[in-house]
Amino acid sequence: MIDFNEEIAAMTETINRSIVLARRPHGAPTAADFRLQQSAVPAPQEGQVLLRTLYLSLDPYMRGRMSDAPSYAAPVALGAPMVGATVCRVEASRHPGFAVGELVLAFSGWQDYAVADGAGLQKLAGLAQPSSALGVLGMPGFTAYMGLLDIGQPKPGETVVVAAASGAVGSVVGQVAKIKGCRVVGIAGGAEKCRYVVEELGFDACIDHRSADFAQQLAAACDEGIDVYFENVGGAVFDAVLPLLNARARVPVCGMIADYNATELPPGPDRLRLLTRTVLTKRIKMQGFIIFDDYGDRNGEFFAQMSAWVAEGKIKFREDIVDGLQNAPQAFIGLLEGKNFGKLVIRVGDA
Amino acid sequence: MIDFNEEIAAMTETINRSIVLARRPHGAPTAADFRLQQSAVPAPQEGQVLLRTLYLSLDPYMRGRMSDAPSYAAPVALGAPMVGATVCRVEASRHPGFAVGELVLAFSGWQDYAVADGAGLQKLAGLAQPSSALGVLGMPGFTAYMGLLDIGQPKPGETVVVAAASGAVGSVVGQVAKIKGCRVVGIAGGAEKCRYVVEELGFDACIDHRSADFAQQLAAACDEGIDVYFENVGGAVFDAVLPLLNARARVPVCGMIADYNATELPPGPDRLRLLTRTVLTKRIKMQGFIIFDDYGDRNGEFFAQMSAWVAEGKIKFREDIVDGLQNAPQAFIGLLEGKNFGKLVIRVGDA
Repeated sequence: MIDFNEEIAAMTETINRSIVLARRPHGAPTAADFRLQQSAVPAPQEGQVLLRTLYLSLDPYMRGRMSDAPSYAAPVALGAPMVGATVCRVEASRHPGFAVGELVLAFSGWQDYAVADGAGLQKLAGLAQPSSALGVLGMPGFTAYMGLLDIGQPKPGETVVVAAASGAVGSVVGQVAKIKGCRVVGIAGGAEKCRYVVEELGFDACIDHRSADFAQQLAAACDEGIDVYFENVGGAVFDAVLPLLNARARVPVCGMIADYNATELPPGPDRLRLLTRTVLTKRIKMQGFIIFDDYGDRNGEFFAQMSAWVAEGKIKFREDIVDGLQNAPQAFIGLLEGKNFGKLVIRVGDA
Repeated sequence: MIDFNEEIAAMTETINRSIVLARRPHGAPTAADFRLQQSAVPAPQEGQVLLRTLYLSLDPYMRGRMSDAPSYAAPVALGAPMVGATVCRVEASRHPGFAVGELVLAFSGWQDYAVADGAGLQKLAGLAQPSSALGVLGMPGFTAYMGLLDIGQPKPGETVVVAAASGAVGSVVGQVAKIKGCRVVGIAGGAEKCRYVVEELGFDACIDHRSADFAQQLAAACDEGIDVYFENVGGAVFDAVLPLLNARARVPVCGMIADYNATELPPGPDRLRLLTRTVLTKRIKMQGFIIFDDYGDRNGEFFAQMSAWVAEGKIKFREDIVDGLQNAPQAFIGLLEGKNFGKLVIRVGDA
């Protein structure tokens, strides 16, 4: 019997595997929407480096890139590799600024190898855990940090609510809010995640959104209302949060994972006016943001502060590492269903 | 035949007429929701003044005060006078700070007379047109100024859209946006108002929301999208604006006159998620505000700037003055239907 994984490992020394978008999903993505494609490992030209992917970040925003509906970023073309942030090792270099063996943060997508001209590569020397550059010290952590602090403006004693509380963004939102002196209520799926959020991350409470009486439990946990709701899931969570928002509440909006697979609007009544009326009567600020577009110039500030908090043990993080590029589609499908527990990362190559 | 108006005029020297809330409206208010009530003119105690109402401001927010649904301000009690801003003359004074004959801005409501202890009264000496303290130089102008400039943050060359463009708030929003170098598209009801908005107020365009192809006309007038939508009407206007909002658009929300009389949510589909998704993908900032609660400390800055602009002819205003306190209910009902043309003011007493 052939060991499939061993065979793949051997192949990857000469073959570049890419996972490409085979077709645009209608609703929830399925395995058939992806295709594993093989090609020769590309050769770097003068001024280029060859990157070997070690870790690939899987994030909910990728669902948006699979669709060609108008959005803030161009969609992945059919037949092109799925996009994504990666931690890579410089495997060969014809670029004076990069030496073989250096680790870099790249955006080289769902594949084993890529060539790059150095633009946009960020060296990761000195990082105790390189994969953290994809999570707590990367885009998800940065999203949590800026959305909470710049848009959310939390004040000591205020109540902050965040869903997907054990995830890459939510876990940082809640812990930073605790550092800022807030009362923090998380929302997560299942008792195990909720326990982790309270016992390990130090949230004041965590409600299981799968509970039949979720809305009542949330209201009970937020007995002084909600001052900051960090919106990263949408759906039924938003519905339960809306009536609990206090006057002058702030709602940074960074994602709506619960709605990404929706193919049509739900049936009525049409609550659009309920939302706008709530915004008016409660003087709510609701603001969407795309982290690198809106806050790219503050990445250094974030990285310095978050690195310090992580080093001091004030911010904890958990990674859900799945082995093998070939498992990325199934892991991504699970991410949209909340099956991961912590920041989802694919280990593509050996570090 | 008795002249009813003369009789009323004679009566008001000894009798205080108040228009009180007779019952809470279900849907659009009707005459039966109000009651004219008579009582003796109150006598000022030591430290008080007696105020004679000259002008009463009628504003859409009063619809909210007629309901006991949760809102940002307490409702008017059944049987109590309707609230409202007024320009009054000091008729008698037992307060060292106020002399008989002085004009003040008060919040004495829908009545001929009121006593006050001086708190909250603002002297109006030197105002060329005292009623303007209820409009362009008062709450509506202040709302337009702060909402547009502080939340809307208009930049030269951007497109600003405002509805009720011939009204107290919308007319100021558009003219200030023009001063700031924006392209300004107004929305108003009927050809006469639209002509006034363009020819007199200097907007770049004005669309009649009663046109069958209103949404198409608005899209054509905003061929570079909308950067600031000053929300003061809601309803079908908001629906037409939503798909035209540009990335990073700002939506200050000060009112939704089109929705105030709604008794239930409209039928589906439920577009709540359409709105939140638009906020996310276009990175929109939507923010409600209540002018004196949120910006009370900046009233002086507003008043100085707006007075200067009015004096220089850079900001024009139009008042729709209705004679007689007894006509306030009908005028208010018409206000909610867009029947007024300019800032609606009731002339209660002779200046």
